[in-house]
Amino acid sequence: MPLTADARGVYPIAPTPFFDDGRIDTASIDRLVDFYLGIGATGLTVLGQLGEAPKLSHGESVEVARRMIRRAPALPVIVGVSAPGFAAMRELTLEVMGAGAAGVMIAPPNTLRTDEQIVGYYRQAVDAIGADVPFVIQDYPLSFSVQMTPAVIRRIVGELPSCVMLKHEDWPGLEKISALRGFERDGSMRRIAILCGNNGLFLDYEMERGADGANTGYAFPDMLCDVVRLSVACQREAAHDLFDAHLPLLRYEQQPGVGLAVRKYLLMRRGLLASAAMRQPAPALSATARAEVEHLLGRLARRDERARLAPPG
Amino acid sequence: MPLTADARGVYPIAPTPFFDDGRIDTASIDRLVDFYLGIGATGLTVLGQLGEAPKLSHGESVEVARRMIRRAPALPVIVGVSAPGFAAMRELTLEVMGAGAAGVMIAPPNTLRTDEQIVGYYRQAVDAIGADVPFVIQDYPLSFSVQMTPAVIRRIVGELPSCVMLKHEDWPGLEKISALRGFERDGSMRRIAILCGNNGLFLDYEMERGADGANTGYAFPDMLCDVVRLSVACQREAAHDLFDAHLPLLRYEQQPGVGLAVRKYLLMRRGLLASAAMRQPAPALSATARAEVEHLLGRLARRDERARLAPPG
Amino acid sequence: MPLTADARGVYPIAPTPFFDDGRIDTASIDRLVDFYLGIGATGLTVLGQLGEAPKLSHGESVEVARRMIRRAPALPVIVGVSAPGFAAMRELTLEVMGAGAAGVMIAPPNTLRTDEQIVGYYRQAVDAIGADVPFVIQDYPLSFSVQMTPAVIRRIVGELPSCVMLKHEDWPGLEKISALRGFERDGSMRRIAILCGNNGLFLDYEMERGADGANTGYAFPDMLCDVVRLSVACQREAAHDLFDAHLPLLRYEQQPGVGLAVRKYLLMRRGLLASAAMRQPAPALSATARAEVEHLLGRLARRDERARLAPPG
Amino acid sequence: MPLTADARGVYPIAPTPFFDDGRIDTASIDRLVDFYLGIGATGLTVLGQLGEAPKLSHGESVEVARRMIRRAPALPVIVGVSAPGFAAMRELTLEVMGAGAAGVMIAPPNTLRTDEQIVGYYRQAVDAIGADVPFVIQDYPLSFSVQMTPAVIRRIVGELPSCVMLKHEDWPGLEKISALRGFERDGSMRRIAILCGNNGLFLDYEMERGADGANTGYAFPDMLCDVVRLSVACQREAAHDLFDAHLPLLRYEQQPGVGLAVRKYLLMRRGLLASAAMRQPAPALSATARAEVEHLLGRLARRDERARLAPPG
Repeated sequence: MPLTADARGVYPIAPTPFFDDGRIDTASIDRLVDFYLGIGATGLTVLGQLGEAPKLSHGESVEVARRMIRRAPALPVIVGVSAPGFAAMRELTLEVMGAGAAGVMIAPPNTLRTDEQIVGYYRQAVDAIGADVPFVIQDYPLSFSVQMTPAVIRRIVGELPSCVMLKHEDWPGLEKISALRGFERDGSMRRIAILCGNNGLFLDYEMERGADGANTGYAFPDMLCDVVRLSVACQREAAHDLFDAHLPLLRYEQQPGVGLAVRKYLLMRRGLLASAAMRQPAPALSATARAEVEHLLGRLARRDERARLAPPG
Repeated sequence: MPLTADARGVYPIAPTPFFDDGRIDTASIDRLVDFYLGIGATGLTVLGQLGEAPKLSHGESVEVARRMIRRAPALPVIVGVSAPGFAAMRELTLEVMGAGAAGVMIAPPNTLRTDEQIVGYYRQAVDAIGADVPFVIQDYPLSFSVQMTPAVIRRIVGELPSCVMLKHEDWPGLEKISALRGFERDGSMRRIAILCGNNGLFLDYEMERGADGANTGYAFPDMLCDVVRLSVACQREAAHDLFDAHLPLLRYEQQPGVGLAVRKYLLMRRGLLASAAMRQPAPALSATARAEVEHLLGRLARRDERARLAPPG
Repeated sequence: MPLTADARGVYPIAPTPFFDDGRIDTASIDRLVDFYLGIGATGLTVLGQLGEAPKLSHGESVEVARRMIRRAPALPVIVGVSAPGFAAMRELTLEVMGAGAAGVMIAPPNTLRTDEQIVGYYRQAVDAIGADVPFVIQDYPLSFSVQMTPAVIRRIVGELPSCVMLKHEDWPGLEKISALRGFERDGSMRRIAILCGNNGLFLDYEMERGADGANTGYAFPDMLCDVVRLSVACQREAAHDLFDAHLPLLRYEQQPGVGLAVRKYLLMRRGLLASAAMRQPAPALSATARAEVEHLLGRLARRDERARLAPPG
Repeated sequence: MPLTADARGVYPIAPTPFFDDGRIDTASIDRLVDFYLGIGATGLTVLGQLGEAPKLSHGESVEVARRMIRRAPALPVIVGVSAPGFAAMRELTLEVMGAGAAGVMIAPPNTLRTDEQIVGYYRQAVDAIGADVPFVIQDYPLSFSVQMTPAVIRRIVGELPSCVMLKHEDWPGLEKISALRGFERDGSMRRIAILCGNNGLFLDYEMERGADGANTGYAFPDMLCDVVRLSVACQREAAHDLFDAHLPLLRYEQQPGVGLAVRKYLLMRRGLLASAAMRQPAPALSATARAEVEHLLGRLARRDERARLAPPG
């Protein structure tokens, strides 16, 4: 079930669950995957930045990806294979594709600046992983400091047939979606899937601009699924009502750095993770921050039942 | 009326109004200032980044600052004097202080990296402008790429008595407010005013962390005034309710780059600016984006009457 | 005498002479200009980065440029007009062109990343200064963090007829010269002057790659003039011999930051500047560093008489 | 033979030899190591940035390090273990220390900005690799964008007893050596070894400032050994004469990016590498560049016999 340009819906970015001592918590992996299946996720992405991929050893990376893939045979699983060099990228790609992954996601290294360099990098990456492996461009300038114009993405898509999806997380990014869909309409670019990240901060309008769904890790991916569904069904105001109810918490989780600590805390509070532990380096969630998250949850619960959780231990 | 560490409330960041042809629109300056006075602003900041200060010639900068100061004799006016060199910074400071400004705001140049360099820069800036001119540190890493730890801010405050305020716009930034207020409590730093920027994206919790108010330019500064007032009055849920109602639009306006175009459009829609024009380089607001802003306004109007505007011409 | 694409030879980057108290030293300006004339410079650039341009007020900038232009009526003078905004750039351009400048030099702001942004910036700059003002692209990624590919330069040259020169200081940069000259040969780009900066660190081979000369500020511009002359006369080994003799000192002067302090010290030692003073922020030259420079001078004097200076006061 | 703060002399940065098809060339590894032994190197560093470490898979990294260690039982071998995460860093450290490495080298990730972050990172790195593993700080701002002040290095040295060496490649960097040696003299920092990198561009004066030697990869490490020896023996002018003879070529090799291609070409020309191949992404050495290198070699041969090589095949 290789990933294709027809991908749509919600591909949650799965966090990597750790025990408090830093070991990988496989039971929580299973629980997470089952949860994603249950809420109607249409795919899954593992070993993303916010999956703490760079903190895993090679062996651990393969183990985590394998376990997710096995647990969710019905879901296409995308594996993040970004690496400082092509040897490591190739090695991981071969292993996870062999294990049944649907495709891989590649972020540009933060040394790239010019259009030429960006296109050249993806060309070399495809040389390394093989032209038969479907891949996703991760376009996240806030995190990677690499700015890809729509024209650069069009060049990559035009040159590299195995490019099937854009993980869109530019900010601001709405016009980029419009520009890419415009390229498709004017025939200058073949269609690819556009799934949006950046914690879903603009998912409401991204869907209206032509996105195919979400590819992010907000702790209420069930909300993301609903918003995508409502939006596709043209229930515009209902989509915005639900989205807006979550926005105060979603914004809090979208903070760089500490955001993943918030996300893991919320997933723990929802009973999906046994621990909110992150591997070092990691920001700590202060007692005040935890109280703020609880306050946000309490306020959200008035508008979305799913946020009604038993008080923390 | 020099600026002191007792500053509090809302100091809107005033945009610089232009006509469509790029000339400065002084009538709109007056209208804006009158509006700020009417909604209970406690001060005013002009010639900030989002006042398009770098796009003005020296003469224009002085003219804009002077006009705002004269129009609002009751309000302390802070003038942004950030400049590539100290000669220009000194020249502008002398002129605006002579014209009645309450103090100046200084952002660090984006070449600064180490703690040493940052403290040294503010030391030299004070040498240039004079130790008797109250100044505000602008701490906006997203825009300036300079990261100041709480300890660095403490060093600046400790060394330079004329530092009276922090324009806090780090992101994430809540823990920084707590850390600075902690320094004050443990006696290691004298108290300074902390007014928050970054479009107010976290103003709700920033107030609870110990901020003294807002120093930003969201197109509904009347909402900022209300939230600060409610928060100070300990009407917590009312403050959040109002804030949350605005968050979808506020988030839209907080986008880097295009955000100022959104803000100016909104201020024009509110009848405060004659034109939403920006000077080059400036992002254009697409028709789709304008429609999205109108949609957000319509949704907001259900919860805040002030957003009920006659349809655009 | 407007600057044209036929410019060649050596355009020294003139430092701005200050007295120890920071005031501008006009007598040293005159002495410098006379010296440049005497050694066979073919032009002059003022208000560059290493002319400490950002540290001058607007009035001072105009004064310095005017004085240099008047003192050297026989030399085309290029004035650096890089500014954070187009209003200031336009204002300075109008004044210096009115005063007799041959053209202006524009560096890209360090926020530019994509090819699109870079080309767009120069387009807007020409809108601001007028299409009749000859301009020089300053391509100095080490200092400005903006990377222009040969293709981007070709787009600028193609779109903007008033672009007549490239101040080439990319590093590594030899292939860029070859690429641009290749574009000219294959007819895809009209010819522009390429004068090399970066303290002349690769001037020996840059001439062989097709550069037209030097546009930099090494404290022995007489050597630069000789090397360019020898290179043009195809006296290859003689050019390299002279260049290599200077390389140990030239390398020392090419250090970022402290390099300008070295240069001004050397120009003072040569009797051209009354003081080596720089305006703040400026690195100090330690006693050890001064001793190293004297050591380098002593060693150089064995191979180039011009470095034989009376011991420092 | 663990690395200690008494390290001195020349620790060449070993390149990783590849065949033209990208496979690792173990015979060239052996030849290189034998050569380093023969010229009087006092140690060896493998898997540095210019050892193309990020382009190796984990297994290859271990293989290369192991082979070098075995081949040079008499030399302390430092292994670069910089990695995007601590799990990978720990894993590689355990394997190479088990294989007999003398210590490891750790570069800071380019996301670090504040003093706090830098010190915190090394603290966590030591937690990961174990406090018993001697480590080297790699201080290379040009490549990593992390600026460490002398005070920050002092904090790391003070807090972490296993820090025994600084690979000094700041630029400008002479004052940093003086500052650190000053800290040692005033008793505020224990002594550590300082070995200089950055291709040796300032090795002549770095030795005079108090460096203990070189830790870089210039293709004539025999020259580095001689300069260090002459400098230690107080034969100042002889040291400079030899150094200056090499400077034109050394400068050419010091260019970012293409420099490693130059280095590998030279090592191939000297018969030490079977191929100059680099793994992708890698800059190509143009025919013109190769001719320039040959020209530089020819000129150098007049002053240093070791550069007299048979013409290229």
